[in-house]
Amino acid sequence: MVFWKSLFSGGDTATDAKAGASVGTAVKVTGLNLPPNSQIFFSTDRDLDLYELEELCDIVGWSRRPLRKVKKALQNSFIVVSMWEVRGATKRMIGFARATSDGAFNATVWDVVVHPDFQGQRLGKAMMKYTIDKIRAEDISNITLFADAHVVGFYSGMGFVEDPEGIKGMFWYPD
Amino acid sequence: MVFWKSLFSGGDTATDAKAGASVGTAVKVTGLNLPPNSQIFFSTDRDLDLYELEELCDIVGWSRRPLRKVKKALQNSFIVVSMWEVRGATKRMIGFARATSDGAFNATVWDVVVHPDFQGQRLGKAMMKYTIDKIRAEDISNITLFADAHVVGFYSGMGFVEDPEGIKGMFWYPD
Repeated sequence: MVFWKSLFSGGDTATDAKAGASVGTAVKVTGLNLPPNSQIFFSTDRDLDLYELEELCDIVGWSRRPLRKVKKALQNSFIVVSMWEVRGATKRMIGFARATSDGAFNATVWDVVVHPDFQGQRLGKAMMKYTIDKIRAEDISNITLFADAHVVGFYSGMGFVEDPEGIKGMFWYPD
Repeated sequence: MVFWKSLFSGGDTATDAKAGASVGTAVKVTGLNLPPNSQIFFSTDRDLDLYELEELCDIVGWSRRPLRKVKKALQNSFIVVSMWEVRGATKRMIGFARATSDGAFNATVWDVVVHPDFQGQRLGKAMMKYTIDKIRAEDISNITLFADAHVVGFYSGMGFVEDPEGIKGMFWYPD
């Protein structure tokens, strides 16, 4: 994975108290159109501000969801990943992904979103890489997702294969 | 769903003490090639005999899995469904399915298996219908699965749609 090694000059755990408790691994990303005092962080804290999360989802055009259900989904997800821009003492959620899993064989990634201001800068890939690494660290071999048609190429570029050996993703519709 | 109504003349909770604690809803299925004293039951008890489960999976040609991981997967599944043939005081696991879920929006069905002696008798459909009903009862709207090529038709017949609106099932492969 030379790509990632060159993209990130090294990830280490954030120790900046200003970053707050909900900010986790620091990722130093170079070559981005970010102000010099801006840093990108990943977190697996699931105790997120749900309004901030739904605002992010709203910006990319997703339907509004009942916060009660969003909260339950986060609690019952195997992993919840958020991506943050930290500028001085302020932080802003700029990305999100989560996965359901049986904790043993299969994990399925849902709700991948990157703020439009931060798209096209390989941050979505970085966040997915972070998510995959976390899942793999739990010895889960089968990582899956359902990709909207316009993002199949994005996931293909990360090692996701569509319909391997003829396996088809299927959705149930009530009569 | 006239089909199901005519197939099952009514399901009620098993009260037969002989059936044991791990047997749940009774399903009276007619027109099967079963002995007259044989009944089919569904259960959502996840405290299964793992050897019996893996034996069932073995019969249909699945790879052996570490029981430690199978146990963990069952514990972390949202729902675990087993199907049983009960004959007098003896019972035999003849089918299995489980689903992961966030408990709110999405559920994904895994490990659907029916014993070869009981295939072709609509019992797989009955078990899937039971599983879907259980998931729907929890107000989860999106039920998904990844179907091997040779069972896509089976799931299509149950209301599962492949690649709806171009959504693709994808699997991650390490470099």
